[in-house]
Amino acid sequence: MAQSFEMRFSGWGVDADAGELSPHVVDWLESRFHRTLAPRVAPPKPDAVRLRKSKLSGKAASKLAERVGADNVRTDHASRLLHCAGKGYPDLLAMRSGARLAAPDAVVYPACHDEVRSIIDLCGREGIAIVPFGGGTSVVGGVSPIRGGFESVISLDMQRMRGLVKLDEASRIGVFGAGLHGPELEHLLRARGFTLGHFPQSFEYSTVGGWVATRSAGQASSGYGRIDEKLLGARLVAPAGELDLAARPASAAGPDLRAIVAGSEGALGVITEVSLSVSPAPEVTRYEALMMPTFEDGANAVRALEQEGVAPEIARVSDAAETEMGMAFAGVEGVKGKLLDGYLRGRGAGSGSLVILGWEGAAGTIEPRRREALSVLKRHGAVGLGAGAGRTWAKHRFSTPYLRDHLIERSVMVETLETSTTWANLMNLYVGVGSALAAHAPVVGCHISHLYPSGASLYFTFVAPQEHADAHAQWQSVKHAACRAIVEYGGTITHHHAIGVDHRAYLVDEDGETGVAALQALKNSLDPQGLMNPGKLL
Amino acid sequence: MAQSFEMRFSGWGVDADAGELSPHVVDWLESRFHRTLAPRVAPPKPDAVRLRKSKLSGKAASKLAERVGADNVRTDHASRLLHCAGKGYPDLLAMRSGARLAAPDAVVYPACHDEVRSIIDLCGREGIAIVPFGGGTSVVGGVSPIRGGFESVISLDMQRMRGLVKLDEASRIGVFGAGLHGPELEHLLRARGFTLGHFPQSFEYSTVGGWVATRSAGQASSGYGRIDEKLLGARLVAPAGELDLAARPASAAGPDLRAIVAGSEGALGVITEVSLSVSPAPEVTRYEALMMPTFEDGANAVRALEQEGVAPEIARVSDAAETEMGMAFAGVEGVKGKLLDGYLRGRGAGSGSLVILGWEGAAGTIEPRRREALSVLKRHGAVGLGAGAGRTWAKHRFSTPYLRDHLIERSVMVETLETSTTWANLMNLYVGVGSALAAHAPVVGCHISHLYPSGASLYFTFVAPQEHADAHAQWQSVKHAACRAIVEYGGTITHHHAIGVDHRAYLVDEDGETGVAALQALKNSLDPQGLMNPGKLL
Repeated sequence: MAQSFEMRFSGWGVDADAGELSPHVVDWLESRFHRTLAPRVAPPKPDAVRLRKSKLSGKAASKLAERVGADNVRTDHASRLLHCAGKGYPDLLAMRSGARLAAPDAVVYPACHDEVRSIIDLCGREGIAIVPFGGGTSVVGGVSPIRGGFESVISLDMQRMRGLVKLDEASRIGVFGAGLHGPELEHLLRARGFTLGHFPQSFEYSTVGGWVATRSAGQASSGYGRIDEKLLGARLVAPAGELDLAARPASAAGPDLRAIVAGSEGALGVITEVSLSVSPAPEVTRYEALMMPTFEDGANAVRALEQEGVAPEIARVSDAAETEMGMAFAGVEGVKGKLLDGYLRGRGAGSGSLVILGWEGAAGTIEPRRREALSVLKRHGAVGLGAGAGRTWAKHRFSTPYLRDHLIERSVMVETLETSTTWANLMNLYVGVGSALAAHAPVVGCHISHLYPSGASLYFTFVAPQEHADAHAQWQSVKHAACRAIVEYGGTITHHHAIGVDHRAYLVDEDGETGVAALQALKNSLDPQGLMNPGKLL
Repeated sequence: MAQSFEMRFSGWGVDADAGELSPHVVDWLESRFHRTLAPRVAPPKPDAVRLRKSKLSGKAASKLAERVGADNVRTDHASRLLHCAGKGYPDLLAMRSGARLAAPDAVVYPACHDEVRSIIDLCGREGIAIVPFGGGTSVVGGVSPIRGGFESVISLDMQRMRGLVKLDEASRIGVFGAGLHGPELEHLLRARGFTLGHFPQSFEYSTVGGWVATRSAGQASSGYGRIDEKLLGARLVAPAGELDLAARPASAAGPDLRAIVAGSEGALGVITEVSLSVSPAPEVTRYEALMMPTFEDGANAVRALEQEGVAPEIARVSDAAETEMGMAFAGVEGVKGKLLDGYLRGRGAGSGSLVILGWEGAAGTIEPRRREALSVLKRHGAVGLGAGAGRTWAKHRFSTPYLRDHLIERSVMVETLETSTTWANLMNLYVGVGSALAAHAPVVGCHISHLYPSGASLYFTFVAPQEHADAHAQWQSVKHAACRAIVEYGGTITHHHAIGVDHRAYLVDEDGETGVAALQALKNSLDPQGLMNPGKLL
């Protein structure tokens, strides 16, 4: 098995890509916190982490090995450690805490759909809970090895199922093994002249099955659409049977089960294969940055782009706080920093709203759209900052999670959360959630990054010194306040991170008691014993 | 209550719009059938139709009247007759048959969401089945007053709930009462500068609640999207509770319940209100017609338009048989007829494929798109026929169902069915279903009318002399053969007509046994007694 898709247990990605904490970041945070950051505490060595004892019976282990081969049933410390948690802030705290961790009792690596079927059947008979595991990038507790009512739990790592099963070029449909990771998927498609156009921040480590299970959006969703919009067909293995939904452009045959597979979060079954709309690989990619007078101007401008049909593939509008934070983190010698400094000096520091645009498409199709878009943006007060700042953003588009690791090592709480609402309610929600966060964190920034004709997403980052007494309780209290504000101000509890463990209490605010009961009935039908991903979603 | 939305019991629409059967149609069909058409048999007078006796108890009737007012609980012959059936071919046969008809035991007209709640609660206590009734235009048995296991059944006519509840112009979201009919809905929106852009053939009589319940597509779906794509929020009253789904641009909060409301077909509850994406009303509308050498050329051409992002709002490609039928029906003196005759004489009669394009949008935005599209079409061999033939199509776009009534009166079976598949499979499905139909009907035509990046719909019309011995059995046998062919050749059992009664046996081919069981579990959760629209969908 390739190890290149496996991340450090204690943080994001791999050591080689982690870089170092910039002194600009430290300086700026210390000035905002009015205190010096705590000295670095290195994460524990893997061997130093204590895991709960595996409860998988020898009999079950050998039956699993009969199905997938002994090499693909792992109970060693390293394998279990890597499947202890996702990459949410509380996960990272736990990994560094020295407390005994809830590890899966085994990690099982199926090679194909039929092996998944066979494993699930066995687990049903043996009473073993199953946690489907893609890239392990969940930030909402989606892969936590909760045993539920069962004696043991396995993590079902899908990384061996990562083929481009079929590419229907005429219909622009790709059929993918669920365990295919972002870079490999794009590599396979680009070789055939196509792209999925799906680039969540977790792109380098997450899997296409995980994207579908969590209704991922992707940074280029404004152009290529969300994963749930691209989902044309799927295979899902549930304890009670299987869904084998053919790739269809559209149908009126009752409620669409594809919309049940999307967002199923491993709690209804294991997604083994997905059929998704693909697009021609772009011939041209162009990033650029602009500055708007205010966040509201920026929001109005990108709304106009989206509603007038000239939005770029990627559109991102940072509020003044996030703009300032980004500028400070880049440092005055940064390309972005220099440009922004000049801009802000001209009009009063700290009040600009950075806009990043990413254009992707066939040669000749971008410029007409872009010209029209820029004229709309200028009507709203945009000043161009050029391609350099845009490219800087693109270069770092997948690396922000490393900064979080560095900050956690300096005892800084840094976390993100996201929501969406209608355009009419966007500023109301922005202020409501922002205020709730500001009561708990000295640094709160926000950006819009997914545009729809009817509304947009809001993505918040908040940063505060860790309260050493109970860093987890500190996080819980901010998270809870933010979730309550999202509900109160009319947002969705999650726009693209999914429900997992963290948002489970708020599903009822989203769907109502009747809706949650209906979803539970659906789950009971597909998974009568409750084997699948206990404690998530429902 | 306005009566203007109520159709003739025995056929489509109202007498005033029905027109007469053109002699061109008769001539052409007689030549194709090699026999003269039977003499006209007029439909029975309403009073001559026998209905089954109402079984609604006096007690239940008075309790219903307490809730909605005595005027809004109707058990008279005329009201019950108008709610006996939808407008499928077997419905029309039944209406004309002289057999005793299964009428609802009463027709109830709620004024608001709370009255719907109250009626459903009462029906639960009294054991009365409920058939939600919008425009009554179902062609798959969706409004048939089946009692299921209950003593009686009411038809719940939503026509009093037809407000534009709210228009959020910034977010382009309209909130509509479920009973709002097409023309009234468009009138309300146009007055505010918007359109829903949803124009199914049933537009003049069907309702927005019915569109959502059946996942309607609309003739302009290529431009404005299907109703399920436009659905952002909904209220559904189920026996077990309510779904009150806020209008949201996007979310990752588990499986999307909006996709369960869409296609619920009255079997999960009553849709009382829907929030839908709306668009600016078009400043310019332009229809035109072209001729392609073959149907396959036409399919390839519109695929290119759709995938290159220059498709018109309406795109329709008729095969040679439908092209010939349309030309024959219009007659040689028809604008279309003359143009087509000239074209076909030039290249050998009978092999052309008629393409209708409809452009809608802001002034200045159509011409660039249109020029690009025409150049694509010409690459595929298109010859322009001008705007006249396009306008002729647009003028008659909602009136084809009247032709069916005229033909039924001359003992002709005329029926349509529709499916969709990927582009790669389109011709395979076309040939497969077409052959199945041709074994039963001398006249079979087809058109593509809804484009997606991944595929398209196929809409078949088939015409045959009625077999008087058992016209219903004749229909059943063709329908069954066509459905089996759709399944065998990889189509969806319905692209926009819904499941209803007619496609119920094929839902398992669509969703599998596990999928159907999951939907049944969902229904049991929302409607534990099975009150809602018995015998439809599941």
